[in-house]
Amino acid sequence: MQCPLPDADDTCVTLAHGGGGRLAWDLLEKVFLPALGDPNRHERHDGAVLDPAGAQVAFATDAHVVTPLFFPGGSIGHLAVCGTVNDLAMCGAEPRWLSTAFVLEEGLPMATLRRVLADMRTAADAAGVSIVTGDTKVVERGKADGLYVVTAGIGLVRAPAPVRPQAVKPGDAILLSGDLGRHGAAVLSIREGLEFEPAPLSDCQALHRPVLALLAAGVEVHCLRDCTRGGLTAALTEIARDGGVRLRIREAAIPVSPGVAAACELLGLDPLQLACEGRFIAFVPVAQVAAALAVLRADPVTAAAVPIGTVLALQAAGTVELETTLGVLRALELPAGEQLPRIC
Amino acid sequence: MQCPLPDADDTCVTLAHGGGGRLAWDLLEKVFLPALGDPNRHERHDGAVLDPAGAQVAFATDAHVVTPLFFPGGSIGHLAVCGTVNDLAMCGAEPRWLSTAFVLEEGLPMATLRRVLADMRTAADAAGVSIVTGDTKVVERGKADGLYVVTAGIGLVRAPAPVRPQAVKPGDAILLSGDLGRHGAAVLSIREGLEFEPAPLSDCQALHRPVLALLAAGVEVHCLRDCTRGGLTAALTEIARDGGVRLRIREAAIPVSPGVAAACELLGLDPLQLACEGRFIAFVPVAQVAAALAVLRADPVTAAAVPIGTVLALQAAGTVELETTLGVLRALELPAGEQLPRIC
Repeated sequence: MQCPLPDADDTCVTLAHGGGGRLAWDLLEKVFLPALGDPNRHERHDGAVLDPAGAQVAFATDAHVVTPLFFPGGSIGHLAVCGTVNDLAMCGAEPRWLSTAFVLEEGLPMATLRRVLADMRTAADAAGVSIVTGDTKVVERGKADGLYVVTAGIGLVRAPAPVRPQAVKPGDAILLSGDLGRHGAAVLSIREGLEFEPAPLSDCQALHRPVLALLAAGVEVHCLRDCTRGGLTAALTEIARDGGVRLRIREAAIPVSPGVAAACELLGLDPLQLACEGRFIAFVPVAQVAAALAVLRADPVTAAAVPIGTVLALQAAGTVELETTLGVLRALELPAGEQLPRIC
Repeated sequence: MQCPLPDADDTCVTLAHGGGGRLAWDLLEKVFLPALGDPNRHERHDGAVLDPAGAQVAFATDAHVVTPLFFPGGSIGHLAVCGTVNDLAMCGAEPRWLSTAFVLEEGLPMATLRRVLADMRTAADAAGVSIVTGDTKVVERGKADGLYVVTAGIGLVRAPAPVRPQAVKPGDAILLSGDLGRHGAAVLSIREGLEFEPAPLSDCQALHRPVLALLAAGVEVHCLRDCTRGGLTAALTEIARDGGVRLRIREAAIPVSPGVAAACELLGLDPLQLACEGRFIAFVPVAQVAAALAVLRADPVTAAAVPIGTVLALQAAGTVELETTLGVLRALELPAGEQLPRIC
């Protein structure tokens, strides 16, 4: 049996912080609530009561195990907020409330935890969402790499029709919100100690504002998908398969920054498969492309949005064709795994 | 750099199952969705869209790191569903939708994962909730003890007034839904290889039906709290503190089964601090005690419900007094940590 004795100077997380005793209460009162708590909520109860005011709600969750915890342009804290905010945005919803669940490793410096929580708070405030409920567990040294964090979120659906792969129609245009692969390249560079010039920063950011602006402008958004694990390739192949459509994209139209291109060239990575945490694709009627691009380019988050392809007829459904810079068509396929494990 | 090669015979979880590629898709399509998916939902999108039909919603989350994964009377799968279902029930809500987020350890036998998922499905079906969205990450061997699972949930609020510590009133009766400590004793017995007679089974179960029955019967439920980490002691001291009340309970009124009593005696554990996963306390007006007990005793989940104490005047708020079997009053206090780490 283990004896989870408290750490007298409270500089590190101990197993006792994960129990049902005084130290768990202290951790909640002195660390979590001051950092994350909504000052308008004082219930201290098992869950939060919320009022969606008659709207449909979107519900999403994301687990985060990125290593290292801090990387150029972000941290696991930013990522945990933006990941779930973006999943809600991809449902055509306005993100409102988040839950957080932490698995902390015994020995985690309290200062590291506070830094992660401060990043979560900053990201939540910037996105206009409240963190309303949570849970914390502690596991022994050697487990959990410092910490894992899972967020779940609720958003209020603002899209007038379902935004999903099944709503994609032949003839739709495919828009990409910006250049690819910054998050993957940033995590890779810090993890492997590589230096690229210019050094890529993660693109980790919340995407709901440009999405809500598209909806507010009356753009008929058929589907949205953020380009996270597996990058643009995964987003496109999943939508082709789930929506039962054939997609064609033009390689020359896809923006990649010089730093990311250099990293990919050096390491033999495909920028189309590199993870982003702040880029998405949108499927809209071709007649609304100009209107949609005008809306997106007015927001700094999506200022570099471009059309990259179209939805073809329903024959050969489930395939994605890439028209390469040489004018050759080739099938875009998912690899078996991931170029980089533990990327988010 | 690591090369997350797929396991050819697919008998174990690999790092590639956590990527954005084909194996991640396979894991979703062949393992997660058949086990957990709602057959009425086929969106395959970043989140689920739900309709609370105008109701207020309760929102809760729970991280589960229990070791071992399977224990007498339950598993991490049962626990992950019941934990969040019960947090929603404690808000006076009808649990409806769950999200699940998994952190899987590389090398986890696929058969173990399937068994956990089957347990989750059984528990969700029994509780009448749907698992509507999820996420999965994979971490390297040696981390995560097989798997960790985080659930979040949404319920529809059925209580006419807020159910929370701040609603507790002097004069309220405190009811306990059954005997204490079976979950803690069951996990301990399997973890330490101890045998008690009779062997305690975990009390892990969903609590929302008796709660909803109390509300339907018109019982004015002021507060509810399940006795998880820290047991009855944590539940009472937290409510005393957060509700600003003084509580008095009678030791002789608190049921403990012979198997749990034997385990506590042998190991020097306090049954009042032992974790339960299927017991709760309810604060109700003293005039409604008979009605509330009649409702609770009609449900097998709460058949052994008993009154254990009362809410005293507001002086000395934040304290809990235990009237011992010898008639002595002593203050019930939280220990610094937890008697048993990794209990849920």
